[in-house]
Amino acid sequence: MNSFGRNFRVTTWGESHGVGIGAVIDGCPAGLPLSAEDIQVELDLRKPGQSDLTTPRKESDTVEILSGVFQGTTTGTPISLLIRNRDVRSSDYETLKEIYRPGHADFTFQQKYGIRDHRGSGRASGRETACRVAAGAVAKKLLARQGMVVLAFVRQIGTVSLDPEILDTLAPAARSLSLDEAASLRQTIFNSTVRCPHEETARAMIETVRGVAEQDDSVGGIIEVRAYGLPAGLGEPVFGKLDACLAGSLLSIGAVKGIEFGEGFRLAALKGSQANDPFKEEEGRVVPAANRAGGVLGGISSGAPLNFRVVIKPTASIKKPQDTVNMRGEKTVLSVEGRHDPCIAVRVVSVIEHMTNLVLVDLFFSQILSTLNKNKTF
Amino acid sequence: MNSFGRNFRVTTWGESHGVGIGAVIDGCPAGLPLSAEDIQVELDLRKPGQSDLTTPRKESDTVEILSGVFQGTTTGTPISLLIRNRDVRSSDYETLKEIYRPGHADFTFQQKYGIRDHRGSGRASGRETACRVAAGAVAKKLLARQGMVVLAFVRQIGTVSLDPEILDTLAPAARSLSLDEAASLRQTIFNSTVRCPHEETARAMIETVRGVAEQDDSVGGIIEVRAYGLPAGLGEPVFGKLDACLAGSLLSIGAVKGIEFGEGFRLAALKGSQANDPFKEEEGRVVPAANRAGGVLGGISSGAPLNFRVVIKPTASIKKPQDTVNMRGEKTVLSVEGRHDPCIAVRVVSVIEHMTNLVLVDLFFSQILSTLNKNKTF
Amino acid sequence: MNSFGRNFRVTTWGESHGVGIGAVIDGCPAGLPLSAEDIQVELDLRKPGQSDLTTPRKESDTVEILSGVFQGTTTGTPISLLIRNRDVRSSDYETLKEIYRPGHADFTFQQKYGIRDHRGSGRASGRETACRVAAGAVAKKLLARQGMVVLAFVRQIGTVSLDPEILDTLAPAARSLSLDEAASLRQTIFNSTVRCPHEETARAMIETVRGVAEQDDSVGGIIEVRAYGLPAGLGEPVFGKLDACLAGSLLSIGAVKGIEFGEGFRLAALKGSQANDPFKEEEGRVVPAANRAGGVLGGISSGAPLNFRVVIKPTASIKKPQDTVNMRGEKTVLSVEGRHDPCIAVRVVSVIEHMTNLVLVDLFFSQILSTLNKNKTF
Amino acid sequence: MNSFGRNFRVTTWGESHGVGIGAVIDGCPAGLPLSAEDIQVELDLRKPGQSDLTTPRKESDTVEILSGVFQGTTTGTPISLLIRNRDVRSSDYETLKEIYRPGHADFTFQQKYGIRDHRGSGRASGRETACRVAAGAVAKKLLARQGMVVLAFVRQIGTVSLDPEILDTLAPAARSLSLDEAASLRQTIFNSTVRCPHEETARAMIETVRGVAEQDDSVGGIIEVRAYGLPAGLGEPVFGKLDACLAGSLLSIGAVKGIEFGEGFRLAALKGSQANDPFKEEEGRVVPAANRAGGVLGGISSGAPLNFRVVIKPTASIKKPQDTVNMRGEKTVLSVEGRHDPCIAVRVVSVIEHMTNLVLVDLFFSQILSTLNKNKTF
Repeated sequence: MNSFGRNFRVTTWGESHGVGIGAVIDGCPAGLPLSAEDIQVELDLRKPGQSDLTTPRKESDTVEILSGVFQGTTTGTPISLLIRNRDVRSSDYETLKEIYRPGHADFTFQQKYGIRDHRGSGRASGRETACRVAAGAVAKKLLARQGMVVLAFVRQIGTVSLDPEILDTLAPAARSLSLDEAASLRQTIFNSTVRCPHEETARAMIETVRGVAEQDDSVGGIIEVRAYGLPAGLGEPVFGKLDACLAGSLLSIGAVKGIEFGEGFRLAALKGSQANDPFKEEEGRVVPAANRAGGVLGGISSGAPLNFRVVIKPTASIKKPQDTVNMRGEKTVLSVEGRHDPCIAVRVVSVIEHMTNLVLVDLFFSQILSTLNKNKTF
Repeated sequence: MNSFGRNFRVTTWGESHGVGIGAVIDGCPAGLPLSAEDIQVELDLRKPGQSDLTTPRKESDTVEILSGVFQGTTTGTPISLLIRNRDVRSSDYETLKEIYRPGHADFTFQQKYGIRDHRGSGRASGRETACRVAAGAVAKKLLARQGMVVLAFVRQIGTVSLDPEILDTLAPAARSLSLDEAASLRQTIFNSTVRCPHEETARAMIETVRGVAEQDDSVGGIIEVRAYGLPAGLGEPVFGKLDACLAGSLLSIGAVKGIEFGEGFRLAALKGSQANDPFKEEEGRVVPAANRAGGVLGGISSGAPLNFRVVIKPTASIKKPQDTVNMRGEKTVLSVEGRHDPCIAVRVVSVIEHMTNLVLVDLFFSQILSTLNKNKTF
Repeated sequence: MNSFGRNFRVTTWGESHGVGIGAVIDGCPAGLPLSAEDIQVELDLRKPGQSDLTTPRKESDTVEILSGVFQGTTTGTPISLLIRNRDVRSSDYETLKEIYRPGHADFTFQQKYGIRDHRGSGRASGRETACRVAAGAVAKKLLARQGMVVLAFVRQIGTVSLDPEILDTLAPAARSLSLDEAASLRQTIFNSTVRCPHEETARAMIETVRGVAEQDDSVGGIIEVRAYGLPAGLGEPVFGKLDACLAGSLLSIGAVKGIEFGEGFRLAALKGSQANDPFKEEEGRVVPAANRAGGVLGGISSGAPLNFRVVIKPTASIKKPQDTVNMRGEKTVLSVEGRHDPCIAVRVVSVIEHMTNLVLVDLFFSQILSTLNKNKTF
Repeated sequence: MNSFGRNFRVTTWGESHGVGIGAVIDGCPAGLPLSAEDIQVELDLRKPGQSDLTTPRKESDTVEILSGVFQGTTTGTPISLLIRNRDVRSSDYETLKEIYRPGHADFTFQQKYGIRDHRGSGRASGRETACRVAAGAVAKKLLARQGMVVLAFVRQIGTVSLDPEILDTLAPAARSLSLDEAASLRQTIFNSTVRCPHEETARAMIETVRGVAEQDDSVGGIIEVRAYGLPAGLGEPVFGKLDACLAGSLLSIGAVKGIEFGEGFRLAALKGSQANDPFKEEEGRVVPAANRAGGVLGGISSGAPLNFRVVIKPTASIKKPQDTVNMRGEKTVLSVEGRHDPCIAVRVVSVIEHMTNLVLVDLFFSQILSTLNKNKTF
């Protein structure tokens, strides 16, 4: 279905070349100051055309709040958000009407529904993720009240990877950042054309992207998330584990093909004595040392920074000619013209950040209901 | 919450050292022949004590069907399954009552709920996964009627990894296996002490496990899934994508710390022209060549084999002494005595297989409702 | 929350004097021909200003389909419907800003949320039901494919009630109507100013409504539903019973204060031998005689016509002066000016019909998944 | 499906003549003292055989807590409750195997599933409601912490009805009872053989029940609920209205055929000026006078006592011979032997009370999440 979350529930709708796309947020508490501008600033960080490394499509992505806000404050009723589609050059897609583009959902939608809106991938378009950013912007405001902040950035493009030790000086895995430090780091990230907070690495990444673009090709990447200020206790045992909810939500982003927490796939080769985080006492609080677990133990946040990585596949749409077939099974050669990002990972950073916001706020609300006799104010 | 699935909904309950554990299946159609024996054979493949490489705990794991089956056939009403706890040596855990074990959920449960059942990890115990195997056994029978079969096996333990080319001769990624071939391969997998279908590799893995066991330590691993017979069309656009549902459900298994589909994390370094699967025509059907996508496109099954890997962390309970703290924050050294698997990946294979069954049957039922005018018989 | 249904899921949003109201339908199968006109005709039957007996407000209620339909056919993706608010004379409500209107939700919204949109009841406005009519219009098309049709009409206004024997000649409780007969009866209902299919009774009802209107007052009523063509088997045992789903959905309409099925409250005074419907054989099929149960047995449709009644309270907004208090607890006398229906039951008929459509289509989809080996085409 | 509630979620399972019945409660906060005895006392008020007016069946209905409670306190994990079936005289039902009993779900289950457990109505048995009482007992403890208490009692049997003015002296509709007064009234109710708090009326009701029992027949009734101590604010706008949730849950009890709130069906004949509750100021608080609305305005509790009535059909199983058909459509005469209640309304009182508890606790938890900046402790 097209809804996400249990307490802070988001329903998205819309196709890339229809009238528009939108989201309905159900479960936002009354009393939160909210304006279209709060959402617009986040959408602007996702929108195409911000540099020569992204598609020059002009998606202005202007959001309207249609309901749920009265005199600048949420009322507790559903918040309906609308983003009209403007730069819809559907004719670009007319030639693709009968062709199954490699790496795209054309074929599987056709098989599933017996019909598909072929214009710009329809519902399967990455454009849908703008709705998640819009809803995530509201979640972000709620999290900020609790001192939580999520940072997402590009960790790897092609074979260029941000060195783990440098990274740890910028966004530590085992100790917290203050909200100010986090805000400043986020600024650095979004000032970077490739959303990488380390300038030298960013330069090498840019070179890689320019290189594949010149070959009419595209390239993959890895996005890392480090989130600070989470209390211990977020996540539900069994099916609603924090890592399970994150994995389920992040793999629902089209280009994401894998996720790993903390040490991730390296754990296969480690011993228990190397992988376990011993606990230690720090300023009167118990905390896990090292944080190889990525801030989650038994599916519940440990109070250490949340840390995970997702892999982003290379943009499927490339100008380089590819063999494929059409709807009648006839061989054809496809060169996708249009206007596409040579490395979609760059634009997905903002989506990853906001999907994480959505998961955290939803589990935070669950956590409020998990015990009696505890201070529940929020 | 403790429920999973929308159409074929499973709710699990129970702690490792309470009266028992169980599952309620809601949404199993009427008319399926079902006996406790059908479920028991699957539980027996997960239960401990099957070799010197797993814990010698005697969890007989005998399942009782309490409802939903009449005269050997499901009635459409909830199927309640009960597995009583028998070999409950809670006293083993008395010394752990106040200690936060590294790598375990003791600390996070205490933080979340202000109370925890410290006996054998309580609700956080891997024992809960027996309920998923039990429910998965019912899902498996439903899938078999549709010609779908899921195979899970150990791909890597420590640094010993099954060679991809050998693997592809056994369980091909880009072409289907017949149900007979798949059944025979499954037999080979479960005949292996380490659930690896290639004998020579299995021997090296066994050596690795024995090695860490002798050091009172444990080791991680990677489990791979290849599933055959899936029609194109399983999975819902946006939040109910096939890969999203699998990721969400598999990360809800305690020891799993990452998942990747098809080429997975290797995609970061690939170009679009290398990563895309061109379509081809084969025996009158359109199919993706190569299947680097792992059988999923835009979150919907492509008809090619489903293929993904999960990483399993080393067993957290080790005899080797570890530094940690108790509930008062005082330093202590912990040597977990008890009876534990040196490589939990081996026993998780069966859990991974059955969680995959649960996801597939749930999405298959959704798929039935996705179009009008299509043959919907099942 | 603001969603309804499990398989055919409708989320509504919007306030009466905000930008607009809308609905998102998730779960409509692909392949249904659908146009805005299909929905508009149903909205037009609910809209105000159709006679001198309803409010003269000009709610043009024009619906736009924003997504989910491509080239005149549903695609299986969410259908987003938007109805802009046009005739918004919010200033009418300025004087009500601080007053708790008797019979309205002003006070309870204020208590619940600490904030409320006071313009025209905000989210609590009956205007929200236009969204249910719009979604119900889609459900109606799906039901028609299965030969199901729902008829709702005014049974009583004030003390004027349609005689049960006359009613049974028009809309029989114990035998089916053909689709043609039902369509013709529906025409008669909506041709009536008070939505009552018996002319003489309708005349007396009209007189009653005019009478209270002249007194600056309002009056209540009873709406009856008789639905034809339902197969036996709709409804889920226990919490998803057909009557439970209908009761839950119909009481969610603001003005509805009660519901009864078949003999309803009369059953209190009946004996079992008088209340039970014996089964009989009719043209090779088993059917309940008499149908005192209203077409539901054990929460599942019996194949006999569905039959129930809901009571509609008098319109709360009346010009007649009423004592009440303002937000500071100070006494005041209120005369609601504005533009209000003297008998809201008349306009609710269409809402009741379409909420019933929504329930039936949702349970019909569940029913498809209830057994194996049965003909499931739809 | 077989689950109820969103935050405090109850899943029930089991057939009347299978191994047992049970419930899983998901969402009970940690920290609530809970014992099997707490639940048993409530079950004992529902169990049969308490007087000569109820079935002499010996359902001992002994509850076991299988999980979720540790050392006398809830842990936040699912609470699994088991009630084994003991007095299962399935042979009584052998003769009914092929007969469709009037007023029962035999026919509709057979039509829906193509199979049914014919022993004692299987899943459709009223025995399932014991699970709701068991879960409701936990909800009741949570509500008591908030000062809320639900009272249900028999208002009418046959034509004997408790006078509204007498009733209002016992359980007032427009002003609150203290917890002590409510506890004492509850005692009076359950001391009465027919669960009616007024002795003289109770005597007349008993006579009515004895009269129909002597005729091998049964009789219907009306149960009334008055609940005290509810804060203003319970219930969600639109689909989760307090009255909608109550209607949906109470109609899911097999014998219930209607529900009405406050003035209920009488509202059809009233004018707005007669039906509206003016607000007044009382001890510094705003309250609705009169409370004709039954404590709900716009679907949200007003702070006045909650008040509604449900109608209970006569017990379907009667010894008096009835015409019906068997599964082959052949006419037959049925005299239900077995052991049945002549007026099931009497035993349903406890079920109504506890379903109401379940609804209130669920909406109370939602209410906690509805605003920011409010005192949320519970």
